[in-house]
Amino acid sequence: MKLKVYADRMSQPSRAVIILCKVNGIEFDEVLIILAKRQQLSPEFKVTDYMNLMVLCFSEINPLGKVPTIVDGRFKLFESHAILIYLASAFPSVADHWYPNDLSKRAKIHSVLDWHHTNLRPGAAGYVMNTVLAPFLGRSLDSKAAAEAEKILTKSLSTLETFWLKGNAKFLLGSSQPSVADLSLVCEIMQLQVLDEKDRLRLFSPYKKVEEWIENTRKATQPHFDVVHKTLYGAKDKFDKQRKMSKPGLQSKM
Amino acid sequence: MKLKVYADRMSQPSRAVIILCKVNGIEFDEVLIILAKRQQLSPEFKVTDYMNLMVLCFSEINPLGKVPTIVDGRFKLFESHAILIYLASAFPSVADHWYPNDLSKRAKIHSVLDWHHTNLRPGAAGYVMNTVLAPFLGRSLDSKAAAEAEKILTKSLSTLETFWLKGNAKFLLGSSQPSVADLSLVCEIMQLQVLDEKDRLRLFSPYKKVEEWIENTRKATQPHFDVVHKTLYGAKDKFDKQRKMSKPGLQSKM
Repeated sequence: MKLKVYADRMSQPSRAVIILCKVNGIEFDEVLIILAKRQQLSPEFKVTDYMNLMVLCFSEINPLGKVPTIVDGRFKLFESHAILIYLASAFPSVADHWYPNDLSKRAKIHSVLDWHHTNLRPGAAGYVMNTVLAPFLGRSLDSKAAAEAEKILTKSLSTLETFWLKGNAKFLLGSSQPSVADLSLVCEIMQLQVLDEKDRLRLFSPYKKVEEWIENTRKATQPHFDVVHKTLYGAKDKFDKQRKMSKPGLQSKM
Repeated sequence: MKLKVYADRMSQPSRAVIILCKVNGIEFDEVLIILAKRQQLSPEFKVTDYMNLMVLCFSEINPLGKVPTIVDGRFKLFESHAILIYLASAFPSVADHWYPNDLSKRAKIHSVLDWHHTNLRPGAAGYVMNTVLAPFLGRSLDSKAAAEAEKILTKSLSTLETFWLKGNAKFLLGSSQPSVADLSLVCEIMQLQVLDEKDRLRLFSPYKKVEEWIENTRKATQPHFDVVHKTLYGAKDKFDKQRKMSKPGLQSKM
């Protein structure tokens, strides 16, 4: 039975799992799960009976309702880092550099992935939520929470620039080839694409190595990287248009 | 060269690493690192020159200043989950059940550990910080942050009770023996010992399986569990005395 990946391409961990599969020729069926709850969706979003049925089935597969979740035969697994490591270990087509057999290299990758959970993730996700996404999920924008998330985010970007991206290596931990950690962290950062462009540039301008590393990871996983991020790029265009429409004075001056 | 463990026994991830070493007969030198920064310590706490020197040396070992950190020969590693997995893989004396060779079992342990980062950890640590610890670190207690942390904590305890502790198994994931996940999560929960006893009982009373599981993990790692938690038990006594002294009316009624 083919691997099943339950995912929402608007979720950054879902994108990381799908890209790993595609880059390494792992055959899988992708099952779309919409993360936003029915009542949280904007009124124009029609939830069909088919989608209700799908969500109902998913709750049997993962009672915690999290994506990405995979089903490999009878084996079910969620949490994206655990999935990335499992896929890299279970599918022989995945090249060693994604999750090396070497104990020390593997341990360092675990260390980056753990750091990600309590630093880059709350920083990036918290900032995007409280400056852009909240109204689309039925919540209010929260400037205090956004300021706190920005502190965590800039500290995380600084740690990436000065600590995890060592010397002139193209990837994390001084590596010449990407690992699951590069993929997970870059997909996390990519959500910042939905920010106002000036704001995004303000956040990133001090971190040149981070920008190069994102581009290195993108290039190493093309064309799949851009294909899987198409949903996010579409969302970015939508947010950009809305920002222009809400500032007609500014638009006419450009 | 003997393994070095840089730790603060008041930090729950430090305790998990030390207990794993002791239970499995891994020889190590423990180096005490005081987590609280000098300016954050209460005035009566004297920082000696020796301690300044120690903190200075530690910054060379881990520029991010996190504990636990280990040094094994020339190999340095931080993030407790990464360390637990490394030790269980690198030291043959560690029994298989702590981190099984079986790919599926291992993946499930990663899944619990990842879940811990974004659920139980912010819930437990956030609640203790904002109801007890903050004044001792030069910060103010924050009732709004405490209420938010309590929501995450109770949801996490409920998920442990109904999802991760399956059937009548003694440990997580339906296991009859503990893994690094049991050790990490139980050490996290143990910090709730410093709460007011009534408050702690209020939080835990709905979760009988969680209480049994904590006791199972404690018993499986004795006498080391209690020895390593001695610093925490001491802090608990101190906080209890302070609470009694600040409520003389209540004390006289008891």
